[in-house]
Amino acid sequence: MNLISVFEIVGTVAFAVSGCMVGIKKDMDLFGAIVLAVTTAVGGGVFRDILIGIHPPAFFMNPYFATISIITAVIVFVFYDKLNRLNNIIQISDAIGLGAFATIGCSVAIKNNFTSPFIVVSLGLFTGVGGGILRDVFAQEIPFVFKKEIYAVACIIGGVSFVISRNYLGNDVALYTGCFVTFIVRMIAIKRNLQLPKAGKRLKQEGLTK
Amino acid sequence: MNLISVFEIVGTVAFAVSGCMVGIKKDMDLFGAIVLAVTTAVGGGVFRDILIGIHPPAFFMNPYFATISIITAVIVFVFYDKLNRLNNIIQISDAIGLGAFATIGCSVAIKNNFTSPFIVVSLGLFTGVGGGILRDVFAQEIPFVFKKEIYAVACIIGGVSFVISRNYLGNDVALYTGCFVTFIVRMIAIKRNLQLPKAGKRLKQEGLTK
Amino acid sequence: MNLISVFEIVGTVAFAVSGCMVGIKKDMDLFGAIVLAVTTAVGGGVFRDILIGIHPPAFFMNPYFATISIITAVIVFVFYDKLNRLNNIIQISDAIGLGAFATIGCSVAIKNNFTSPFIVVSLGLFTGVGGGILRDVFAQEIPFVFKKEIYAVACIIGGVSFVISRNYLGNDVALYTGCFVTFIVRMIAIKRNLQLPKAGKRLKQEGLTK
Repeated sequence: MNLISVFEIVGTVAFAVSGCMVGIKKDMDLFGAIVLAVTTAVGGGVFRDILIGIHPPAFFMNPYFATISIITAVIVFVFYDKLNRLNNIIQISDAIGLGAFATIGCSVAIKNNFTSPFIVVSLGLFTGVGGGILRDVFAQEIPFVFKKEIYAVACIIGGVSFVISRNYLGNDVALYTGCFVTFIVRMIAIKRNLQLPKAGKRLKQEGLTK
Repeated sequence: MNLISVFEIVGTVAFAVSGCMVGIKKDMDLFGAIVLAVTTAVGGGVFRDILIGIHPPAFFMNPYFATISIITAVIVFVFYDKLNRLNNIIQISDAIGLGAFATIGCSVAIKNNFTSPFIVVSLGLFTGVGGGILRDVFAQEIPFVFKKEIYAVACIIGGVSFVISRNYLGNDVALYTGCFVTFIVRMIAIKRNLQLPKAGKRLKQEGLTK
Repeated sequence: MNLISVFEIVGTVAFAVSGCMVGIKKDMDLFGAIVLAVTTAVGGGVFRDILIGIHPPAFFMNPYFATISIITAVIVFVFYDKLNRLNNIIQISDAIGLGAFATIGCSVAIKNNFTSPFIVVSLGLFTGVGGGILRDVFAQEIPFVFKKEIYAVACIIGGVSFVISRNYLGNDVALYTGCFVTFIVRMIAIKRNLQLPKAGKRLKQEGLTK
């Protein structure tokens, strides 16, 4: 088992935790919380596979990641009240997972002979953020990734790093570069509380927005 | 026409009724209510077909079920004010439909040579609950199936029954077993008002959830 | 470059403008607004391609329309406060785009040998309204197209015109007929403020709806 696989498992657990916690906050029952955990953890990959025509999506051929997500969700469900103190660990794990998911998405594109940088970076982005978008749609929230902090942007920068380093240094180095860059950008954004700009200042001053 | 086909039509009508009623409650116009009816009735099957690579989804090759859904929606639209007294019939039809849809989903998996129990049960589940999830997303509600009662769980138990009875008794018996078990579990859940557990008791006591 | 291609670009810009403005109103950051612009502009076509098995969707093979959408979104983001006076132009462009998208959807169906009128009109409809539905789901609104005015209905009438005129007058004429009819129906609906009927009068009088 290589390091990226370890990161992928860390990410699966972190994404499942975030899905389950959102489900619990939204008053879902055990089944809903499990579905939200699984959706967050594997939704991005399933969407990527649908786009490039992998039928059925890899997720269904191997219940490995579903199993991890379900077990994670049950544990979160039982120990929910004690999880708040783990906030830091969850954020770091989430950033590791984001890096692993984004670069795995890029590398699935390459393996399926889609080598245009636009597709490679797009599939990395979808794999990284697709699950979280689905989680928020199901939980009746505007997707987190559209509103706050440098999250998707970290995937895009990581994807671009993957493409560039793959050109010069080969696939293996590219995987670690993409993963590492995504992780670092995300962690810096969290530490410095970096945000993308928002528009419509005048509108806001006049109090016309919701 | 075999019995499962009859159940499928009953289910289509029941699902279309639920979609249309949600649309009307959400102040949608005739078109919106029809779309919601069709989405609820066929959305699960379309999602299943996208996942396993049936292009275009069966629904589009044959407008039969769309036609049933549209006619149902128009009738509901016209007679909306008188439908509340049919509540019981609608619930029973919905449970029949859930059973039919779930087992048809399982059997589509088998026909396309996906025989792993995980895929079979997953596709049954998606076929059964996918339409309702889409309905609720479009209607801006947290999907019903994540919050209340034993609904998805009935599909899963039905799917497992399908897999087991297919191993010992063949396809035909499995279809009826899966359908019947799903129906019975769902009806018991309604009658006894069974619910899955929810988490976060302490959080709730402190009044921190929405 | 033929006229339909020009209309497609006009439509892409108009759809991107609507997506970006919704994003800004919902307090999204620059990335969210761009995603919403791209989603609105290309979402319908991507969904159409997923349904008929074009992998990856045409959008990914050629970043042309994504580029147009992103540039549009950035311009809207910067000049947001001055855009209200362009309301009329945006509505007309949107109607042109709706016509172009709907007929392009119909014609993609034909090119992929799906000639049943039901599929042709459905794919035209999805291409025309799919992006807007996704935009509204992400923005946490009940999709506009389910609630207000003759929008989807314009696509359907345009699609039917496409099918009929293709039978008698060939593909090229059908493209312009479909596009023109969709545009005209949409403009009449705007000018006359035409709406589809809604149900449940008694319910509303009793003040039971939201």
